[in-house]
Amino acid sequence: MKRIEIVNGPNLNLTGIRQPEIYGSVTMEQMVAALRARFPEAEIGYYQSNVEGELINRLHEVGFTADGIVLNAGGYSHTSVALHDAIAAVTTPVVEVHISNIFAREEYRRHSLLSDVCRGVVCGLGLEGYRFAVESFLAD
Amino acid sequence: MKRIEIVNGPNLNLTGIRQPEIYGSVTMEQMVAALRARFPEAEIGYYQSNVEGELINRLHEVGFTADGIVLNAGGYSHTSVALHDAIAAVTTPVVEVHISNIFAREEYRRHSLLSDVCRGVVCGLGLEGYRFAVESFLAD
Amino acid sequence: MKRIEIVNGPNLNLTGIRQPEIYGSVTMEQMVAALRARFPEAEIGYYQSNVEGELINRLHEVGFTADGIVLNAGGYSHTSVALHDAIAAVTTPVVEVHISNIFAREEYRRHSLLSDVCRGVVCGLGLEGYRFAVESFLAD
Amino acid sequence: MKRIEIVNGPNLNLTGIRQPEIYGSVTMEQMVAALRARFPEAEIGYYQSNVEGELINRLHEVGFTADGIVLNAGGYSHTSVALHDAIAAVTTPVVEVHISNIFAREEYRRHSLLSDVCRGVVCGLGLEGYRFAVESFLAD
Amino acid sequence: MKRIEIVNGPNLNLTGIRQPEIYGSVTMEQMVAALRARFPEAEIGYYQSNVEGELINRLHEVGFTADGIVLNAGGYSHTSVALHDAIAAVTTPVVEVHISNIFAREEYRRHSLLSDVCRGVVCGLGLEGYRFAVESFLAD
Amino acid sequence: MKRIEIVNGPNLNLTGIRQPEIYGSVTMEQMVAALRARFPEAEIGYYQSNVEGELINRLHEVGFTADGIVLNAGGYSHTSVALHDAIAAVTTPVVEVHISNIFAREEYRRHSLLSDVCRGVVCGLGLEGYRFAVESFLAD
Amino acid sequence: MKRIEIVNGPNLNLTGIRQPEIYGSVTMEQMVAALRARFPEAEIGYYQSNVEGELINRLHEVGFTADGIVLNAGGYSHTSVALHDAIAAVTTPVVEVHISNIFAREEYRRHSLLSDVCRGVVCGLGLEGYRFAVESFLAD
Amino acid sequence: MKRIEIVNGPNLNLTGIRQPEIYGSVTMEQMVAALRARFPEAEIGYYQSNVEGELINRLHEVGFTADGIVLNAGGYSHTSVALHDAIAAVTTPVVEVHISNIFAREEYRRHSLLSDVCRGVVCGLGLEGYRFAVESFLAD
Amino acid sequence: MKRIEIVNGPNLNLTGIRQPEIYGSVTMEQMVAALRARFPEAEIGYYQSNVEGELINRLHEVGFTADGIVLNAGGYSHTSVALHDAIAAVTTPVVEVHISNIFAREEYRRHSLLSDVCRGVVCGLGLEGYRFAVESFLAD
Amino acid sequence: MKRIEIVNGPNLNLTGIRQPEIYGSVTMEQMVAALRARFPEAEIGYYQSNVEGELINRLHEVGFTADGIVLNAGGYSHTSVALHDAIAAVTTPVVEVHISNIFAREEYRRHSLLSDVCRGVVCGLGLEGYRFAVESFLAD
Amino acid sequence: MKRIEIVNGPNLNLTGIRQPEIYGSVTMEQMVAALRARFPEAEIGYYQSNVEGELINRLHEVGFTADGIVLNAGGYSHTSVALHDAIAAVTTPVVEVHISNIFAREEYRRHSLLSDVCRGVVCGLGLEGYRFAVESFLAD
Amino acid sequence: MKRIEIVNGPNLNLTGIRQPEIYGSVTMEQMVAALRARFPEAEIGYYQSNVEGELINRLHEVGFTADGIVLNAGGYSHTSVALHDAIAAVTTPVVEVHISNIFAREEYRRHSLLSDVCRGVVCGLGLEGYRFAVESFLAD
Repeated sequence: MKRIEIVNGPNLNLTGIRQPEIYGSVTMEQMVAALRARFPEAEIGYYQSNVEGELINRLHEVGFTADGIVLNAGGYSHTSVALHDAIAAVTTPVVEVHISNIFAREEYRRHSLLSDVCRGVVCGLGLEGYRFAVESFLAD
Repeated sequence: MKRIEIVNGPNLNLTGIRQPEIYGSVTMEQMVAALRARFPEAEIGYYQSNVEGELINRLHEVGFTADGIVLNAGGYSHTSVALHDAIAAVTTPVVEVHISNIFAREEYRRHSLLSDVCRGVVCGLGLEGYRFAVESFLAD
Repeated sequence: MKRIEIVNGPNLNLTGIRQPEIYGSVTMEQMVAALRARFPEAEIGYYQSNVEGELINRLHEVGFTADGIVLNAGGYSHTSVALHDAIAAVTTPVVEVHISNIFAREEYRRHSLLSDVCRGVVCGLGLEGYRFAVESFLAD
Repeated sequence: MKRIEIVNGPNLNLTGIRQPEIYGSVTMEQMVAALRARFPEAEIGYYQSNVEGELINRLHEVGFTADGIVLNAGGYSHTSVALHDAIAAVTTPVVEVHISNIFAREEYRRHSLLSDVCRGVVCGLGLEGYRFAVESFLAD
Repeated sequence: MKRIEIVNGPNLNLTGIRQPEIYGSVTMEQMVAALRARFPEAEIGYYQSNVEGELINRLHEVGFTADGIVLNAGGYSHTSVALHDAIAAVTTPVVEVHISNIFAREEYRRHSLLSDVCRGVVCGLGLEGYRFAVESFLAD
Repeated sequence: MKRIEIVNGPNLNLTGIRQPEIYGSVTMEQMVAALRARFPEAEIGYYQSNVEGELINRLHEVGFTADGIVLNAGGYSHTSVALHDAIAAVTTPVVEVHISNIFAREEYRRHSLLSDVCRGVVCGLGLEGYRFAVESFLAD
Repeated sequence: MKRIEIVNGPNLNLTGIRQPEIYGSVTMEQMVAALRARFPEAEIGYYQSNVEGELINRLHEVGFTADGIVLNAGGYSHTSVALHDAIAAVTTPVVEVHISNIFAREEYRRHSLLSDVCRGVVCGLGLEGYRFAVESFLAD
Repeated sequence: MKRIEIVNGPNLNLTGIRQPEIYGSVTMEQMVAALRARFPEAEIGYYQSNVEGELINRLHEVGFTADGIVLNAGGYSHTSVALHDAIAAVTTPVVEVHISNIFAREEYRRHSLLSDVCRGVVCGLGLEGYRFAVESFLAD
Repeated sequence: MKRIEIVNGPNLNLTGIRQPEIYGSVTMEQMVAALRARFPEAEIGYYQSNVEGELINRLHEVGFTADGIVLNAGGYSHTSVALHDAIAAVTTPVVEVHISNIFAREEYRRHSLLSDVCRGVVCGLGLEGYRFAVESFLAD
Repeated sequence: MKRIEIVNGPNLNLTGIRQPEIYGSVTMEQMVAALRARFPEAEIGYYQSNVEGELINRLHEVGFTADGIVLNAGGYSHTSVALHDAIAAVTTPVVEVHISNIFAREEYRRHSLLSDVCRGVVCGLGLEGYRFAVESFLAD
Repeated sequence: MKRIEIVNGPNLNLTGIRQPEIYGSVTMEQMVAALRARFPEAEIGYYQSNVEGELINRLHEVGFTADGIVLNAGGYSHTSVALHDAIAAVTTPVVEVHISNIFAREEYRRHSLLSDVCRGVVCGLGLEGYRFAVESFLAD
Repeated sequence: MKRIEIVNGPNLNLTGIRQPEIYGSVTMEQMVAALRARFPEAEIGYYQSNVEGELINRLHEVGFTADGIVLNAGGYSHTSVALHDAIAAVTTPVVEVHISNIFAREEYRRHSLLSDVCRGVVCGLGLEGYRFAVESFLAD
């Protein structure tokens, strides 16, 4: 049985709660529940924090034993060398996910410091992006 | 029945033929056949050209009637304002796919001029990326 | 009765304690007390943390119910996309304050990543800047 | 009795006259009248010109005897080394004011050449910004 | 018997025909004839196109079987990631040639995107540059 | 009788057909017909292609005998050194036209690589820009 | 009857007087006279100043009542945010004109700060550029 | 007796545990023990955190009483203005240490935001770098 | 008898009056008087303005008949394309003078837009710089 | 009889002596001997120095009388304006040679300050590059 | 017995002689004597030159036989590709030393072209830095 | 009696000998003779070298005892941090001279690394620039 860990960064705890007219009314908890139902052959963990260092802690905890990490580091994607180093240090492969198309947004948001140490990137496909990332690990 | 068009740019005609130890031995034709078998509810078209303008022509031909376009513009992704304009001009949504993780490669390859007018981007997930892109249209 | 929340970032806990010949001997706690005395018609909250993510947590907590947030994010002002996103995500307007004139300092300190999602900026006017920011909300 | 001089640069003569739905219908003359009424303990001068050099002339005239200068140099803020030098040359402290939040506007408007020789900056707080600037001098 | 392919890009079809006072009156066809006469031990192919994609097509056709490719990509040298990828994809080594000294010309012409995947570069030595490039393959 | 050649680049074949609420319902063919009617003293040719190299071919064909070329190279204007070289190589003067005001659009669209070898530029004046360009040649 | 105002910036008062071998011997006054003769259905005003602020004053004076402004701001085109703001503040549309092809000149002259708030740009077509700009307003 | 505090940033808790073939099998705890044994005349403290703000907290705690701080801020070295400010705010001198030669690594890792407020930098000399830094304080 | 015109820009009217401990107590008027006494064989004019356009006017007035112009454009040196154009338009040679060493000052002050159209530059030699510039014309 | 001078810069004295598995075991002296044997109709001089100024001295000595100079300035190619000036000052044409393909190496090595004053450049073709450069002069 | 060579670049011959109030009164010769006394188990060589090429010569002489080189290249650190190449060419490892903290100085002094080919860097620790560098080789 | 030392850098030994139609036929030796004749009250030394380090040596020799140094470092002006450091290290003031107007030349020649540590700069005034520099020291 494969173990996939989803790790969400800053402000993603608000998804589905605030501004539902924009982001829809699906919360991260509901999305995770749906993924668990869809992929019973996998164990799917979930973690969220607004604190950069706690995300690093989480990567250290799960990054040597899980089969895959789905990481949406939110705003830290664009500024964190420390997260970059944590991804490079662990042995579990990481797929980076962004709900929106970051390349259609502000200039400083078009570059992720994390992408080069991730296996791949999915962005702009909404919450479905998490599903595709999970699936890419199941197909390994 | 949904119609999805896959459009491949320069050098992608070599996929699966040369350097199989790197890119595997699956050709684009084989991948398309597998997609058609997997998604019988969709009509999946395929087109490849090494000529930038012919890719634009193709976008014009299918971009007002198809339900989705999966575009891997290869090296033109990084230099073509004209392709960018063609994507913006057509009404069919486009998802950009790259087989490798372009963000882990040369500096000039880390920026795609096309991403901001696409719906989303999938990269680094190999040929599976085409499947996820197709699926994102089927879920519309 | 309006509710105004003051949020202070890294190193501002040292204000008034260390180097009083430079920064004066007024502590943040004393300043807040003076503001509460001057504006009895307002409820004025105060929070300080050196941890970027805890500042985001605080913005989430107060940013949907308070009438105004006065934010001095210190060094995070210049580097934090995550804080920028938190300000954009909440509904309470934010005024950015800096005690010193950041534009007369080092090059990398002359640009705040937060300013474009704040209502306005006050800088270089010392602790009085907090007062002006509070007052700008009272005049709404 | 303190003497405060307000100096307004290009296009600010149109404030309150044109596009009242955007900038409101308060003219600069009315704002100055209100400030004089609110602060009877101060002598508040007012000057406006669209000519860069005349603004420099004005700074020379009042910049050695006034107690404070409130300067909104409009578009010259972003391009004028000569105004910068004039501020540095006079002995009266200057506070820079912008009605709108210049940091939420075009890239070239996010940097003021004047800020580093001013005492402080207030921006994005509307006409109230002039009041705060005046008050910062009265508290000296 | 070695097979060397010369591939010329945009505008090079005008060489020797127009502005003979500048470029001389030797056409590309005459130059190729002279090379074939000088090196009877080699089979020397020639191809020219103004279309970027057709140059890529040509590289695909000859780039796995020829012993050397002499490439003057003209203006595409400075802008084409797709040609760069084609050179990297084929197995025949490529030597880049420019008739004029591109480093003594406009800024944007001083950088070739192709050079780093070529074996070497010869520029500024006129049509003789083609001869040296051919000879470098014969000496392999 | 003067001969003027109009050369249109990528995506301009869609003018007047798609998005008439934006671009109006006048097609390029209708515009050319109107120009021919207005200027019976001139022979006005028309050519459009989405392929960069074919535009170069066209410039070679007409660029030594026509009296003027009106060129709207669309997205290639911003990226094509090869087109730049073609304009420089031919002897017929070229006037660059853009229907929209490219200087009010995205950053990368504000610089045309072609302008410095053209006689002049007309932009933002809609289809009338073609007329002014034609007229500038008739007045030679 | 339409009213068109021509506004000329620094050094343009020398046109036709000095260096006639370069700029011709037609003065601005003569050009304006010719335009008035050619377009009797329009009222054509003319103003020139070497002072940036006086050009702004002029835009304020005519920019709410005229039907079109033809502006050649000379060297201020490349440096004046204040003129940019004046154009944005007035309601009359502005067409920017340059006699020479600014894109074929020094690097710093290839960018106009004014173009993005003008309706369009005509450059490199000599004094005829003024005529085309006037005509573009008559066709409104 | 001198008091020296060693402060380690993100991911350094993994040293000696993971990838021993690269980083060796000496843990930070073992290194500190060795330092304490070698320098009995000094009191050597040790602290590690993956959280940027907790590193700032630590600097505040020890930065006014210790005789020297040895800081390896890991990935935060390259992005943290807040840490920079904390170093500048405390009175204890700081020596920056990096185990590897950061100047032989990725471009964004070659610049430390912290170095200019540190007394000095030691990098590329492995764990010995910590020893040299400690010793530099003992020699004060 | 040679005619030399000295033209001074913004803030230079304050020389010798304010901050004599820095700039000395020699006024520009005294310096000109001394120059006239030293070089009786020359007619030496003097003009100062804080208005950029008036400096241009002055260059137009004297720039076709004088034998040399000594120009200290102050802060306009670093920002004025219009002044640059005026210098290029007149026929009298210009020598640029700066009292202080602009290359030892702020970054934006180290580049003069005027120098490339002047005959030469003298800076950092105090008021003596004006004398050397005058003398360089007398030696013509 | 033509006289060709070969001038080699820093570190090239090690060629063929150290790291023969990389650079081969041919020394510069052997290469020069081979060239002299191959081209008995030419007088071929040779000079090497690690001192930038001595290379300039050498160019002065031979640069007015030799028929051609073959220059490999090694690391000075990328940094020496003084060598650039020396090449420009002498009258003998210079061809720049690099043994390796500098465009496939570090960023700072991809630009030679010398190329624009040389007649041409040969790089990446090994020691044969020297031969081609010599031959290009013999064909003059 | 290990052999360590110290190589000092430009201006370092003045250390201890001039400006003793800044740099102390210890000369390089005295420092070397102290090192020799402290490390009798090592043979410590010393060389200084102001000539870039002579430093390269020295590296060639000692760089294949010594056990370690301690290099302070002074101002050449920031500009010399040739020295960089020499370090890369020799087989002895090099540790770079700077007496002052170069990262707290002028912008252009914060980047050393040499660091990436050195084993490590010690800076800002005064003359002790030489000792640490020597010791790092003794511990090999 | 004052002692002034003139120090000339690379290629300046060719002045007056080569290209007299450009640089005139006055050699540096003749110029120095003329200066000695004109200023009998001064002792004027002269030194020239093409070697950067020898120029540094010369500055060390004369830079603590002479009353003034006139330095034309030629091409080293734009690249030498080491020369910059030597000027900063000596106590004699230095005036930088360039015969031609470096600001009217290539981009990379418009910035001198030396100017900020010199007292002043004279450029574009031909050999007279040396005279003015000498005179500026005599007036001290």
